[in-house]
Order: sequence, then structure tokens, then C-alpha cells
Amino acid sequence: MPKNREAARANLENLYRIFTIPEAPESTLGRVDQAITDDVAGFLQTHIVALERSIEEIEADFSSPCIPEEPTYVSEYTDFVKEKLVAQSVHTAAPGFIGHMTSALPYFMLPLSRIMTALNQNTVKVETSKAFTPLERQVLAMLHRLIYSCDAPFYNRWIHDSRHALGAFCSGGTIANLTALWVARNRLFAPQGSFRGIAQEGMVRALRHLDCDGVALLVSRRGHYSLGKAVDLLGIGRDNLILVETDSRNRIDVGELERELKRLRQERIRPLALVGIAGTTETGNVDPLSQMADLAAEHGCHFHVDAAWGGPTLFSEKNRHLLAGIERADSVTIDAHKQLYVPMGAGMVLFKDPTAQTAIEHHAAYILRHGSKDLGSHTLEGSRPGKAMLVHAGLSIIGRKGYELLIDLGIERARTFAAMVRQHPNFELTSEPELNILTYRFVPEAVQQSFPHATPEQARQLNTLLDQLNQLLQKEQREAGKTFVSRTRLRVADHSGEELTVLRVVLANPLTTAAILEAVLAEQCELVRGEEIAPVLCQLEQICAAIASPCSCAC
Amino acid sequence: MPKNREAARANLENLYRIFTIPEAPESTLGRVDQAITDDVAGFLQTHIVALERSIEEIEADFSSPCIPEEPTYVSEYTDFVKEKLVAQSVHTAAPGFIGHMTSALPYFMLPLSRIMTALNQNTVKVETSKAFTPLERQVLAMLHRLIYSCDAPFYNRWIHDSRHALGAFCSGGTIANLTALWVARNRLFAPQGSFRGIAQEGMVRALRHLDCDGVALLVSRRGHYSLGKAVDLLGIGRDNLILVETDSRNRIDVGELERELKRLRQERIRPLALVGIAGTTETGNVDPLSQMADLAAEHGCHFHVDAAWGGPTLFSEKNRHLLAGIERADSVTIDAHKQLYVPMGAGMVLFKDPTAQTAIEHHAAYILRHGSKDLGSHTLEGSRPGKAMLVHAGLSIIGRKGYELLIDLGIERARTFAAMVRQHPNFELTSEPELNILTYRFVPEAVQQSFPHATPEQARQLNTLLDQLNQLLQKEQREAGKTFVSRTRLRVADHSGEELTVLRVVLANPLTTAAILEAVLAEQCELVRGEEIAPVLCQLEQICAAIASPCSCAC
Repeated sequence: MPKNREAARANLENLYRIFTIPEAPESTLGRVDQAITDDVAGFLQTHIVALERSIEEIEADFSSPCIPEEPTYVSEYTDFVKEKLVAQSVHTAAPGFIGHMTSALPYFMLPLSRIMTALNQNTVKVETSKAFTPLERQVLAMLHRLIYSCDAPFYNRWIHDSRHALGAFCSGGTIANLTALWVARNRLFAPQGSFRGIAQEGMVRALRHLDCDGVALLVSRRGHYSLGKAVDLLGIGRDNLILVETDSRNRIDVGELERELKRLRQERIRPLALVGIAGTTETGNVDPLSQMADLAAEHGCHFHVDAAWGGPTLFSEKNRHLLAGIERADSVTIDAHKQLYVPMGAGMVLFKDPTAQTAIEHHAAYILRHGSKDLGSHTLEGSRPGKAMLVHAGLSIIGRKGYELLIDLGIERARTFAAMVRQHPNFELTSEPELNILTYRFVPEAVQQSFPHATPEQARQLNTLLDQLNQLLQKEQREAGKTFVSRTRLRVADHSGEELTVLRVVLANPLTTAAILEAVLAEQCELVRGEEIAPVLCQLEQICAAIASPCSCAC
Repeated sequence: MPKNREAARANLENLYRIFTIPEAPESTLGRVDQAITDDVAGFLQTHIVALERSIEEIEADFSSPCIPEEPTYVSEYTDFVKEKLVAQSVHTAAPGFIGHMTSALPYFMLPLSRIMTALNQNTVKVETSKAFTPLERQVLAMLHRLIYSCDAPFYNRWIHDSRHALGAFCSGGTIANLTALWVARNRLFAPQGSFRGIAQEGMVRALRHLDCDGVALLVSRRGHYSLGKAVDLLGIGRDNLILVETDSRNRIDVGELERELKRLRQERIRPLALVGIAGTTETGNVDPLSQMADLAAEHGCHFHVDAAWGGPTLFSEKNRHLLAGIERADSVTIDAHKQLYVPMGAGMVLFKDPTAQTAIEHHAAYILRHGSKDLGSHTLEGSRPGKAMLVHAGLSIIGRKGYELLIDLGIERARTFAAMVRQHPNFELTSEPELNILTYRFVPEAVQQSFPHATPEQARQLNTLLDQLNQLLQKEQREAGKTFVSRTRLRVADHSGEELTVLRVVLANPLTTAAILEAVLAEQCELVRGEEIAPVLCQLEQICAAIASPCSCAC
């Protein structure tokens, strides 16, 4: 069968080609690559189609479950990527897209990412990462010092200690939070006497050992949803994730927290950890960390701070006081792909006590051997890319003062936007910005004026309609593709703590100007007049009319 | 303070610059970028220094825990990266580096990774990923079909179903295995009657509900170390990770497995899952998956297959029979950064039953809302990058037949290398290749000839010295930096099941030729003659001499 043999040889040659011959500069992929190199913002602006196609339409291009039998030309595939994927992706870097936590990236991140990808190191072990291991340890030390400000001898002692690590790199904040709570759990149920620790013996014997009926995690009701996954995974159960009430500014109510701790003790449930939030996902508020640290100390439990969002506020001399108390945390989560401006997929957890991670230490025969400097013996994940390099690059190139500027500008911008919302007759601020996140909603002026005169039932009706209106508004704005805000449900103090649908804005992109913020509001005012939302507006007006001239009959 | 104000303005301008002005082509970073674009292999070859510096020396360049106050010029930082990081990284793509699971990457992966990074999508939710969500769902369906071969109506029904997913993308195999076992645990302890499920109520009440004293995970003693982390995290405890004995070919001993299952039942411990391995990390062997599937069915427990390494063997018509039975697994782990040739940080878990992940479903108020198509409601991780794009690219551009070639070549190459080892007087094969991984060790010819005549004590002494010798050999070869094999500890049937130090070789790089394999062995023969290893050789010779002329006195 010479024909088959010939085809096989051709296949083999093609195969070697993709491993040995670079894409030519004038090839389709080469040109795209060059265009991104020359001007990524321009490339994204040109190639991402603003107007949203429905997800169902997009799915049609990704509906075959069959792996192609034959190879595809790179050029052909690149065309597909351009037309079907890039065109239909989300312009996360656009300065008018202020609804999510993904901002524009500094330009240098792209070529440095290419170096990282080309090197393809695996930081699980020194044998496949060499200098990337000391580098990752250095980055962990830098962030540790940002939080805990230990002295030079401390870092000199611990930074490259083969048996320990100052923290762990993770794919993101969820794994970071989980790692922190895993450590906390294993330290609470550490080996003692004949008990060989929860890692060895499991949850049931661990509880028996400490003579309690359960363990609980306490966080405000604004806690990130990753904590729910963590208590599920760790065998604690969501029943014992205690969501403590917040005050009017979305911060944990310390009195309530104390009452919950007391209740748990009566129920023979041990508090595993208190979780303070430094920048809630939805409103950007910061819990009273010092007071929480006091309570954690009093109850002898782990104090974790989820600073995935707000951690980098520590760069700012003017604003770092907002996180006062974070230095008393046993562990802290910070996401690098948020306010450190690193591409997606980089989080960290730092531990105050450099020996804390001993509680989750593990080894294998082929790697992570005792005494090796392999970072993988203290991480939840196994193989991991060299993302620490990009954090290192950001910290070096932008510097502390550069990040300070970014943080201060964001907080300033949030105040500017809050002022715009407050001054506008048709909007209502539903959470004051503390960091650079805030929420608000569209409430027509007439409705705002009617609220004080409304019966509780009428107020409820108004809010239900306003929920509908704001949900539609967010959807239409997203679909129009020019600007973007997100939405969530929030208990709002001014509305007797009722849970309302609100628009959410995150102001981390340094390219977002005041003019763009004005444009976001202007577009919303316009969209409200569209045919989708008009009927809701009409219903709102009717209720307002009823409030203005209450019916006196017995109906 | 006009001076301060001036400095502040300059800082601000610099800050905007890094977000708005691309690196110039003639800049230091621009030139590195271009060099990688033009010829990544050449770049790595030129810039990675072969000769190993000690890790302590390297650490000196990464020892400051201080975040620089002032910004650094990108060019200055790039020089640092070139000289201190790239130079001291590991040449994972080199065809002579056959000791780890990271191979060379196809060229197109680099520019496509840049597109992915530039787009900076977050696949946790459609709002920040749009087309990347259907794309990820399609890739999961493709891999699902590769394993389970369901029919077109099945995929048509499930591929884009908003309430379900055919699997989950993960940062790697560890998270994939953990996700599979999390699902298995939550399905075993699903809500029933007044019991609201383990996710809600936790491990203690779950065990009480099923009236048992514990749950166990069963895997062969060659199971990946991530399973130890999983039982720890999930509250099961390492005591209940049952490491079943293997047969002479490193495959689980099914008789032993049955005995363990019987023992567990007597001890009132429920088997949570059997884990079959399709390509053990250390020896590349495949468990008898069909027999394990039978046992799992008989005992009503979850059957997970860890095919992180071997999964892509399914691409090969000639070799896929080696994984027979995998289609009966409830869940399967496959790593894309291994034999799908995607850059580090991409794993997957697939579930046979498309509704399985309901057991770990979660929601939040601001994303992952009920009814949304957000993939994040069924993943352990939260924010995740668009890595699915690179898997999609590999499957499309390389195609089924291309991957088949890669797999077949690797298995062929392993057989070639095994033959070389077998024919060489000074090496001993310690595990036959089944896929493309094998182990061997250096054993001088004289020692090989002495073994049959040695007393058990003498054999033990010989093996202890051979362990030392091979450990030193692996270290010296790594430090010389020309080629690389790894090492592990393995029970070897030919040596009465004693655990020995062996050299480990993974043959997945298509650029590794027979000549390179010859060179690896030749270098080892040379290194053994060096001054570090010579004393060990000398001791070995003495024992051989004693075996040849046994002392007849009573000593």
C-alpha cells in the first residue's frame, strides 16, 4: 500500500513541522500576532464585535462534539478564531466596561507572558522550574511583607526555607481561600497524643477527639461564594457556614458575630475560622478587621482575611488604613489577576506563621521529596505555570508607588461616580464606595419622591418593578455592547433592609475617565426609554399616581 | 510643593504609558519578543544556560522581600529576566530532557496563547467570556465523546445545556481528580428524606445517615499523590486511602482489591470510589479497567479513572485497546498540558452522566444565577482563563490523526529505548513500557552476574549501593544540563518486590530521536566513572568479589 505509506509520511512531516518551524510573519497567524504586538488595544477594538449576538447563535459555531479526523491548516484555524471567537468575546479591557473585576493589562504583560509560555516551566518542583522556584518564593515574601511587615531577619530566615513556604500560589482566589481554610482545619485538628490529626484520621474522629459536634466558619452575608464550596469540600457542611448580618454599610455586625459565636458554643460547635472581607465582591466594603481579630483571639480560632480584591489597597499610604487589622490575620488571600493587573489565573494565599502550611504538607516518591525546595509539597494544586513571574514583573516595573497611584485613582474615581449618581435625579446610590466598587440603581425622580408617602405594600410594589427595570436595563446595556455594568441583589438599609436588584460598578481600569462614566449613565437613561422597559416605567407611574391621590373607597 | 506635584504628574504619565503605549519593536523587550516569535527553540537554546548553578546561588538573585518603591524601566527588567530567570530556567522542551511530563510545544501554541492573554476572558461566567463558554463546552464534549462515544442526539441534548456540564476545566489533574471525588462523595451522600445531603450537613451526619463508620478510596499503590490530598481535603482521612498492592507490571492486583473491599465492609466502611490509573505517573502502566468497573458496579461505588497522562492514547486506533474499560468510568481525568501539548495549567475532568455535577452545583447573587449558562456553577475554581481555546486549537490543527501519530511514536520510542537498555550490559530495565514511560537503573555487568549467587543479605547490600549510585547519577546528569532523566522509588518484582531507586523516562517529545536516547545512556556510562560515583562502584566490586569467592570461615 504505497499510497497509505505516502500519506503517513506526509502526516509525519506535517507533524514535525508544527514542532520545528515557526509561523511565518506573513502567515495569517503571524499577522494577527504582529497586530497584537503592535497595538493590542487597537486589535481588540477592531476585532471584537460590539453588538451582542445571542448565546444560542454563538453556540451554533461550537456545536460539534467530533474531534476533526484530519489536521486543519493553521491559517484556516486562525480565521475561525478571528471570526468566531475573538469577534464574539468580551472586551474586558474596554474602559467603558466597568461591571467586572477584569481590567486592561499593562502592555508589558503580553510579551512577558509569551516568555513564560515559551519557557513552559512547572513550579511544582525545582527540577522543572529552577529559578522560577526562588522567584515564586520571593514574590510570596514580598506580598507577605506588604501585609505583615516582618523584619529583615525574619525574611532572611524563611524566604527560601526548604521545609516551609510563606504562602502558596494558586490559580485564583477560590483555591487560595480553600487552602487557607484547609490549613486552618488541619491545625485545629492537629495530631495530639494518640490522635494522628484530621489529615490522617478524617473528620469524624477529629470531632470526637476535640469532643465537639461540628465546626463552623463565620463570615458576613457578603462573603464570597467560594466559602460555600470550601465548607462543602472540607466536610464541614454548608449548615455550618454562618452568614452573619451586616451593618448599613455592608460590613459584618460585630455584635451579631459575638452572638453567633456564643450560640455555636452552646451547640457544641467549634468555630474553625472567622473570615474578614477586605473589599466585598459586590460592594467593596471592608469588615472591621481589628475587632474581628480580637474576637478570633478570644475564641482561639483562625482569622482569615479574604482580600482577593482589596489587598493591593495596602500599596497606598493614603488608603491602607482602610485595611487596618489585616496584619493580625493568620492568612490572607490576594488575587493577582485583579488589582495587580496580571492576566487571568493568578491568586495567592499568605500565612502569617511560616510553619502553618506544615499542616497540609505532602510528599511523593518521584518529586516533593523531604528536604527538597519543591513548592508543590505545600500547595493544593500540583503542576502549575510560572505565573509568579508576571506578578514579579508587575511589582518591579510598576513599583509600590505605581500601584499606589492605581489604587488611589480608583478610589477617587468611585467617589466621582458616586457623586454623579447622587446628583442625578433618576439614580439612587445603594452602597457608598469605600474602595473602588459601588452599587446604584435607576429610580425615576417621580418614584423617588413617592417613596416617603407610600404604604409598605406600595413601597414593595415599587421595588419589585424597579428590580425588573434594572435587570432589563443591565441586560440591554450589555447587549448593546458599548458599555457594561453588572448587577446583583443587595439588602439596602434605606429600604428597610429589603433585598433589591442593583447595578454594580468596579472602577479599576485606569483608562476609565469621568466622561466615560457620564456616558454610562447617559446610555442608561436612554435605554430606559426603549420599548422593552417602557411598560415597566408605565406601571411605576401608575403606582406613583395612586400614592399621590390615594383612593378613599374601601377597596 | 511644585516639585512633588511635578513628580506626581510624571508618575501618572508613566502609568498611563504602560497601559496605552506598546513596547517598541527595537526596545529590549520588543527584541526578545521578536526573537521568540522568530524561533523559540533557538531562543531557548541560546538563552538557557545548560550548566546548573546551585539553587542557593540562584536564590541570591531572588532574596529581597521588598517591593521596589520606584518603577523600573521595562528594558532594565527585561535584562534581569534574560540573565537571571530565563538563563536559569529548565529547558523543558529540549529533546534530551526525557525525565518529566512537559514536552516541546507546537509553534502555533505561542501566538494563540498571546491572543488568549490579550483577550483576558474569565470563563467563570458568560458575561466575561461570551464565545469562550460555548467553546469550552464544545471541548468538554469532544473529550467526553473520545472517552464515552455517546451518539449525536446525546451531545445535541447536553453540550450547551445551561443546567449541566459534561465535565469541568481545571488548572490541572489534581483539581480534576479532586473535583471527581467531590462529586462522587456528594452523590453517595445525596439528599434523601430528611437528610439534606453532605454538602449541606457535613461528613458526620452524612455517615450517620448511611449508617457507616467511614468512607474509603481505593487505588493501587502507584496512585498519584493528589489522591492523598483529596481524601485529606474531603474529610475522609488518609487512613481511608487504601493503597492496593500491584502485580509484577505495576497494575492493581484485582484479587487484593476484592479482599480490601471485603475487609472494609466488615469494618463498616463504605467504598466511596475505586480509582483506576490509565498511565501511572512513574511507570506508565494501565490498571485492568474493565475488571475494576465490574467491581465498582458490584459494590455500588463510583469508578474514577485517572488518565491525566494516558488519556490521549484513545486517539490511537492501534493502542486505544490498552485503555479498554475506560468508557465504563463514571469520571475521567485528562491533562491537556501533558499529552495534548498545551502550555502548563490545563486539566479536565469528564463525567459520564451529564447530571453528575449537580452534586456540586452552587450559585451566587451576582453571577452563576440559576438558568445562566455560566460554567462557574459547576467548577471547583472560580475565575479561570480561556485555556480551552488552546485545547480546541490542538484538537483542530493537529487533528485526531496527528495526535494518533504522536501517541504511536511515543510508545514506539519507549520500546526502542527499552530494547537499548535491555541490550546494554550495564543497565537493567525495571519496568517494561506499556505506554511511553519506563524505568531502569544502572547496574554494572559484574553486579548483574553476581545477583543470582548472592545471599539475601548480599543482594540487599548490592541494592542499597545501587540506590546510591543511581541517585548520584541522576543528580550529576541533571547538573551537567545536557540531558535529563528523573528518578523515583519502585518495588521491582525481579528483586523480590524490594523498593529500589530507579531512573524514569517519559517519551512524549516528538523531537527525541534514537540517537538522543543512545546519548543519554552513553552520558550515564561516562558519569559513573566520575569521582563522585567511583567510590560506590568500588564498594560494589568488593561485594561482587566476596560473592565470587565466599569466605569459608565462620565469620
